[in-house]
Amino acid sequence: MSTQAPPVHIGILLYQDFEALDIFGPLNCLNALSRDFPLQISILTPETTLKPLNTYPSDPGPHNSNFTQAVVPTHTTADPPKDLEVIFIPGGNGMYVDTPAISAAVQFVKDTYPKLRYLNTICTGSALLARTGILDGRRATSNKAFYKIVTAERPAVNWIPKARWVVDGNIYTSSGVTAGIDMTLAFIQDVYGRKYADEIADRLEYDRMLNPDEDPFAAKYGLA
Amino acid sequence: MSTQAPPVHIGILLYQDFEALDIFGPLNCLNALSRDFPLQISILTPETTLKPLNTYPSDPGPHNSNFTQAVVPTHTTADPPKDLEVIFIPGGNGMYVDTPAISAAVQFVKDTYPKLRYLNTICTGSALLARTGILDGRRATSNKAFYKIVTAERPAVNWIPKARWVVDGNIYTSSGVTAGIDMTLAFIQDVYGRKYADEIADRLEYDRMLNPDEDPFAAKYGLA
Repeated sequence: MSTQAPPVHIGILLYQDFEALDIFGPLNCLNALSRDFPLQISILTPETTLKPLNTYPSDPGPHNSNFTQAVVPTHTTADPPKDLEVIFIPGGNGMYVDTPAISAAVQFVKDTYPKLRYLNTICTGSALLARTGILDGRRATSNKAFYKIVTAERPAVNWIPKARWVVDGNIYTSSGVTAGIDMTLAFIQDVYGRKYADEIADRLEYDRMLNPDEDPFAAKYGLA
Repeated sequence: MSTQAPPVHIGILLYQDFEALDIFGPLNCLNALSRDFPLQISILTPETTLKPLNTYPSDPGPHNSNFTQAVVPTHTTADPPKDLEVIFIPGGNGMYVDTPAISAAVQFVKDTYPKLRYLNTICTGSALLARTGILDGRRATSNKAFYKIVTAERPAVNWIPKARWVVDGNIYTSSGVTAGIDMTLAFIQDVYGRKYADEIADRLEYDRMLNPDEDPFAAKYGLA
């Protein structure tokens, strides 16, 4: 643990078609932590307005479903708060659509990282981060079902196939979806204290993984 | 599995100060399922308007935090869709605040249950359901940290202390927060088919619990 006061202002970078649980697992941990520490949240959109952002899937799909949820952002990435200390980025299908908003999200992360204390991605959120070049030469992981797509896009990253999450310096990256809960609890343990991570896992009735190298899904997806 | 076509229209009953992961765990499972089956979602608010609803915690708490997320509802409970087949209800601190909206939520569940095919609650969502009387004499479970409060409020329910989730007829109730993921995957297995539940668990990189009676948190909270 650092001797510096732990971070207060946490930014959540969303985009159209993000994966709901990628970010609401970590958010529920942080919501609980905000009872123990002063925390402030900003929810960032790379769109040009503050219109709500939809979870995967916002398109109807092969069965013409209508099944999505909308979350309200607080800031655009064009006009972000100046004192963000940590950013979390979820994965999601929307990241693989070539839109001005996704380009704006990548540029925002590139511009903001030097001012941050921590940058944490869940699932294919690491693919968005990788596009900035910040991960080049660093250790990182990602969603295991999409692993080959993610790693082929940015081979300069030292991608780790068998990991529930990976820490390299001040960057935490997790494997798919629920791995974000384990990664966030590890982040809380490292930065705010183990007591809080353990208490939050119990509140969530979650049997958390404590070993970042334990990853049954690497083998399941033929990566280990 | 039923021979009838599986349910299409799923309602999510939210309220101010709901617990984020209680509902976004199940929702991520259902989001994925909507690629395999035609599904439709309605997000219901018991407030009088469609203003966004905030996750726990929307109050600043002892450290004056500002840490909440807002989700956009699609219908008020006063004017709900007429063809809802399933309702999911998350837990959360907001359920323990005596407001007209919480009374409206209880009345809505009471009025709507006879028309539903399934009614599923996560965490202290079962306490809201218990207030309707629908659970009286039925087996149900709830969040383990709040178990004594929940069960004392409605002793006529056959509360089960050691259970990850409980099925009684067409009502599924789960233990706290992440137990909602296991319960929802069990619901999907029972109603849509095991193949889909297994595939979704793998997509979520989630080592799901298959045994509803396996509940390490009952002992942790002194209930077993």
